[in-house]
Amino acid sequence: MKVREKIDGLRRLMASNGLAAYVVPGNDPHASEYMASHWFEMQWISGFNGEAGTVVVTMDRALLWTDSRYYLQAGIELQDSGIELMRESDIDCPSVIDWLSENIDGVVGVNPEMFSVNSFREFRSELKSIDLIKPLWTEDRPSIPQDKLYPYSADFAGESVESKLARMRGILESKVKNQEAKEWALIISALDEIAWLLNIRGNDVEFNPVVISYVVLEKDKCTLFVDEAKIDSPARNYLDFNNIDIRPYEAVFEYIHGLRGTVFYDGARVNEALYEAIPEACKKVGITSPILIDKAKKNAVELEGERIAMRQDAVALTRFFKWLEEEAFAEGKTRTEWELMEKLHEFRAMGENFVEESFGTIAGYRGNGAIVHYAATPDKCAVVKPEGMLLLDSGGQYLDGTTDITRTVWLGGRIPQQAKLDYTYVLKGHIALARARFPRGTRGNQLDAFAKQYMWEAGITFGHGTGHGVGHFLCCHEGPQNVRTDNNPMPLEIGHIVSDEPGIYRTDKWGIRTENLITVIPAARTKTATTEDEWLAFETLTLCFYDTSLIEMSLMTEDEIDWINAYHVRVYKEVAPLLNDEEKAYLAYKCQAIEI
Amino acid sequence: MKVREKIDGLRRLMASNGLAAYVVPGNDPHASEYMASHWFEMQWISGFNGEAGTVVVTMDRALLWTDSRYYLQAGIELQDSGIELMRESDIDCPSVIDWLSENIDGVVGVNPEMFSVNSFREFRSELKSIDLIKPLWTEDRPSIPQDKLYPYSADFAGESVESKLARMRGILESKVKNQEAKEWALIISALDEIAWLLNIRGNDVEFNPVVISYVVLEKDKCTLFVDEAKIDSPARNYLDFNNIDIRPYEAVFEYIHGLRGTVFYDGARVNEALYEAIPEACKKVGITSPILIDKAKKNAVELEGERIAMRQDAVALTRFFKWLEEEAFAEGKTRTEWELMEKLHEFRAMGENFVEESFGTIAGYRGNGAIVHYAATPDKCAVVKPEGMLLLDSGGQYLDGTTDITRTVWLGGRIPQQAKLDYTYVLKGHIALARARFPRGTRGNQLDAFAKQYMWEAGITFGHGTGHGVGHFLCCHEGPQNVRTDNNPMPLEIGHIVSDEPGIYRTDKWGIRTENLITVIPAARTKTATTEDEWLAFETLTLCFYDTSLIEMSLMTEDEIDWINAYHVRVYKEVAPLLNDEEKAYLAYKCQAIEI
Repeated sequence: MKVREKIDGLRRLMASNGLAAYVVPGNDPHASEYMASHWFEMQWISGFNGEAGTVVVTMDRALLWTDSRYYLQAGIELQDSGIELMRESDIDCPSVIDWLSENIDGVVGVNPEMFSVNSFREFRSELKSIDLIKPLWTEDRPSIPQDKLYPYSADFAGESVESKLARMRGILESKVKNQEAKEWALIISALDEIAWLLNIRGNDVEFNPVVISYVVLEKDKCTLFVDEAKIDSPARNYLDFNNIDIRPYEAVFEYIHGLRGTVFYDGARVNEALYEAIPEACKKVGITSPILIDKAKKNAVELEGERIAMRQDAVALTRFFKWLEEEAFAEGKTRTEWELMEKLHEFRAMGENFVEESFGTIAGYRGNGAIVHYAATPDKCAVVKPEGMLLLDSGGQYLDGTTDITRTVWLGGRIPQQAKLDYTYVLKGHIALARARFPRGTRGNQLDAFAKQYMWEAGITFGHGTGHGVGHFLCCHEGPQNVRTDNNPMPLEIGHIVSDEPGIYRTDKWGIRTENLITVIPAARTKTATTEDEWLAFETLTLCFYDTSLIEMSLMTEDEIDWINAYHVRVYKEVAPLLNDEEKAYLAYKCQAIEI
Repeated sequence: MKVREKIDGLRRLMASNGLAAYVVPGNDPHASEYMASHWFEMQWISGFNGEAGTVVVTMDRALLWTDSRYYLQAGIELQDSGIELMRESDIDCPSVIDWLSENIDGVVGVNPEMFSVNSFREFRSELKSIDLIKPLWTEDRPSIPQDKLYPYSADFAGESVESKLARMRGILESKVKNQEAKEWALIISALDEIAWLLNIRGNDVEFNPVVISYVVLEKDKCTLFVDEAKIDSPARNYLDFNNIDIRPYEAVFEYIHGLRGTVFYDGARVNEALYEAIPEACKKVGITSPILIDKAKKNAVELEGERIAMRQDAVALTRFFKWLEEEAFAEGKTRTEWELMEKLHEFRAMGENFVEESFGTIAGYRGNGAIVHYAATPDKCAVVKPEGMLLLDSGGQYLDGTTDITRTVWLGGRIPQQAKLDYTYVLKGHIALARARFPRGTRGNQLDAFAKQYMWEAGITFGHGTGHGVGHFLCCHEGPQNVRTDNNPMPLEIGHIVSDEPGIYRTDKWGIRTENLITVIPAARTKTATTEDEWLAFETLTLCFYDTSLIEMSLMTEDEIDWINAYHVRVYKEVAPLLNDEEKAYLAYKCQAIEI
C-alpha cells in the first residue's frame, strides 16, 4: 500500500466516524524512548522513517511535524506523499495542539493508548478516543516482540522483589490512610519501572533491556500483564515464587475496569486508555510514580555493579583508542565512521556480562561531531584520516550496570588554537560539575551553570542538557533527576546517577563533548560549617583518560590540574589490572601527569 | 480594651455570624511589604507587635503563628493574653491552612480584602467573606494616611504617563483581540505599580514612597481611587492633564461591580474582595501584571538616576566610615549600634534629593551581625568598641533612585583566621555573580550558585536569597526578578536591578554580608560565539570600597584581584569629585590597589 492509499483509507474511516482530523504520534503505549517496531504507526502512515514526528490527517490535508534533525530526511521521504512538512524547530511553527485548535472545528480522533494522561489533557480540541490505524495496518505489521523475559538476580539488583513490593505498598498505604475505601491499586506502564520493580529484564526493545508489559499493584496482589509466549518455565516459577499473577497483555484494560477504591497513576507516564478504563466509582489520584523516585536512587549493590561495568567499559575504550592510535591508520589506511563504531562494538562485546549497547554510538568526525544527534550509517558516513577531531559518544548495557561515555580526541596534525580553547572550556566545566559540593535539596538546574561558566565567559554555550539521569542495567536516559537549565523541581539525592557532558559545537568544523557518569554521594560536614545542612558531592564512575594533548594549559588552575592527575592515577590503578602488558604501557602513557 | 476583651468581642460576632473560626492575617489590601498602621489588625487583636504573624480565633482557642525571628518577642507580648504561640519556622508546625482544615469543621471567617486571590484559593476550609475587625476596632484606630500625593517628573521617570498608559493598553488589547466583547479593564492594587504607572509618589508608608490607592485601567479611561484629602490643586491639575479620573478610595468595589467585558487581574497581588466585586457576566482573566513586568526593566533615565543616587550614597558612606575610623571611638569613647544608625542617617540626609531611608538600617555588631533580620532599637542595642566585626546594611530613597548596600568591616584588634576565610568566600561569590556573563533567557536561580560555590566548597551556606529585585525610587524589594534558589521562572532581562549579597553567619560570633546593586546589561557577542544567543552581563551600580584588610589573599585569583582593583579605581574616580580634600585622601587610602 502506498502512503496516498493509506491516507485515503484513513480518511474513509474518519468520515464514517465523523472525525475532522486524526492524529498519529510517534509514541508507544508505554511512553518509551526506544520503541518496538510494532508501534511505528507514524512511520507506517507517512513513509517518513525518522525517530520523532507526529502526523495529522484532515479531509483535505496531511501534515507531518518533526524537528530540525530530520528536515532533510523528511523532505526526501515525503516526496510524492502529499504530506506537508511542518518544521517544528522553527520559531513560527505552531504546535500540533495549536494548529488543531486554530484549523479544525470538528472532532479530532486520537488513539488514547498513544498519549500520556497529561499530554492528552493538553489538547484544546474536541477529542474522540479511537484507534483507526489498527483496522488499516493489517498487512506486514510487526507483532509485539515475543522474546522471553528473564529474572534479574537480586545479586545484581541488590534488593529482592519482596522487599521492593513491600516498600512501595507502604508508600501507597500511607497515601490512602485517611481515605474511607481501603482498597487501592497503582497502575504501572513505564517498562523500566516494571523491570526494576519485579527484577525482570528482556530483549523487547533495542538498547533497553525491558519487557513489554503492564503491572497493577494492589494491597495483596501484583499482576503482570504480558504475552504468555514470553514466559518460559523458569520465568513462570520465578513469578509464581514472588506471588506475581500473570495475565495476558491486552487484559489490563478489563482488569483496571474491575478495580475498586483508590487508583493511583502517574499522569506523565500512564496512557490515557488505561486512565479511561478506571471505573467512575474509583477515586483517581495522580501522583509522581514512587517507583520512578526510588529506582533513581541506586543501592550499594547497584552502584558496585556500575563500578564493575565501568571497568569493563574502560578496558574496551582503552583497547579501542590504542587500536585507533597504533593500527587503524597504519600503512596509509583510512577508516569510515561506521568502521570505528563496529570496532568499538567488537571491543565492548569482549567484556564480561556485556549484553548490548545502551544507545546507538555517535562517531562524529570533524564537522559531523558538531551535529548533536549525528548517526553514521554503513552507506552514509565520513572517511576518517589520522588528522583532526573525533567525537565518540557510546555506552554499554552490562548485567552489572549501564554506561555512557563521550571522549573527544585529536587524531593528528596541527591543533588549531580555537580547538584547544574550546576543549579546555568544556573540560573545565566538566570538572567544575564533578567537583561540586552542595547542600542537600539542591536541584540540578542550580548546578548546571557550573559546567557552562567558562564557555559563557567566552560567549559560547550549547543547546542540549548538561546531564541526564541513567538507569542501572535499564534505560540510558531516566528521570526524574537531571542537570539542565529547565526548572525541574527534583533535588539531587544520594544514589542518583547523572551524566556530566558539556559540549561546544562549531558547524562544519568540530564538536567537542566530554562525558562521565557521576553519582551523588554524602559529603562530610566541615568543622567550620555554619548550618545543619547535609552536604552532597559527586563520585565519578566513568574510568577513561582524557586527551590531554588538547588542553590549553594556560587556562587551567592548579586545582583542575590536580583533579585530572588524581583521576588519571585512579583510572590506571583500576583499569590496568585487566590489561595485558602492552595495553598497560599504552594506558600509563595516556595517564601521564600533566604540569603547568 | 485588653486583648482578652477584644477576643471575647470577636467571639460574640463570630457566634452571631455562625463562624467556627476567624483569621486575622498581618496583611493590608495592597499586598504591601511595609504597611500603614491603619491595617495593623493582627497586632491590635493580639498585642503582638512583630511585623509578621497570623492570628486564628476559635470559640475556645486563640493562636498566633509567627516565625523564629519573633519567638522571643511573641513569648513576652502574648503573656496573659490566652493566645497560644505557633512556631511556624519549626518543622512540625502545621500551616494555618492545614491547622484549620484539620481542626475546624464549621465555617471560617476571613476578610477578603486581606488576602490575594491566590492565597484565598489555598484555604481548604469553608470560608465566609466578612470583616469582623472593623466593627470591633472603633477606638484609637489610626486612619488611612492622608498625606498628599505628588507628581513624579518624567525627568526622573524617563517616560510620560501617556506613553506608559498607551503601552499597557496595547499589551491588554492584544490579549483581548480574539474575544467578542471589546470592553476590558485591568484592576491594579499594588501600590508601587500604581506609583510607576501614573508617575506619582507619596508618603503613606515608611520606606516606600507610595500612595494608598487603587487603579482601574480601561480602553478609554484610567481611574484612580484615592482619598480626596490627598489631592491638592497641583496634583489635581496633573491628574486632569493626564486624563486620570479621581474617585474615592472605597468606591473601587462599586466601580468594579459596574465593569463589562474582560476583566484582567493579577491573582498574586489583587485582593479577593476586588475579585469578588467583578460581575458574574464578565470574563475574568488572571495574568501576571504587565506593569510588574515592565516596571522591573528600568529605562535609561531611571538607570542614570540610579547612578546619581549611588554617588550620593557613596559620599554618605565614605563620610560615615571615615568618622567611624577616625572620630567615633576617639578618647576611649564607645558607641551603640543605634548611634551608628543615627550617624549614618545624618550623613545620608545631607545628600541631594534624599527623601528617606529605603528600609530600617541593620547595624549588627559582632554576634548581632549573625541575626539576619536584626533590628537595634534605642533601648536595646549593643555597645560598639573599636574591635571586632560590624555588619552594616542600609539604603536610601532619593528622587533619583533607590539604594541598598551592605558592607562588613573590621573595627580593630587581631583578625581571627576564620573571619578572613569567611569574608573571602563571601567576597569571591559576590564577585563571581557580578562578573557573570550569560545567554539571554537565563534565570536568577541558574546563577545563584555562582555566589555560593566557594563557601559550598568549605561546607558553608546561608539561608536568605542572594539577590532581590530593586525598584526605582520605589520599593527596595520588588519582583519579578531575583537571584534565589527557588524555581522562579522569570529570566533576567536588560534593565533589571538585583542585589548581589551573599553572606556567612556564625551564631554569637559575626555576620558577614557584602552587597552591591547590579543591573543587567547587554554583553557583546564574542567573535568565537557558536550560537546566535544574545549575551547579558551585569553592571555594578553601587560605589563603595570593600574592607580589604579582611581579605585572605591566598584564596584570591588574579582575575578577582583585578576586578577589585578596577572597581576601586572606578569608585575613587566617581566619588572623589564630590568630597573635600580630607575625605578624598581617606577614600584614596581605602581604594588602594591590593596585590597578591
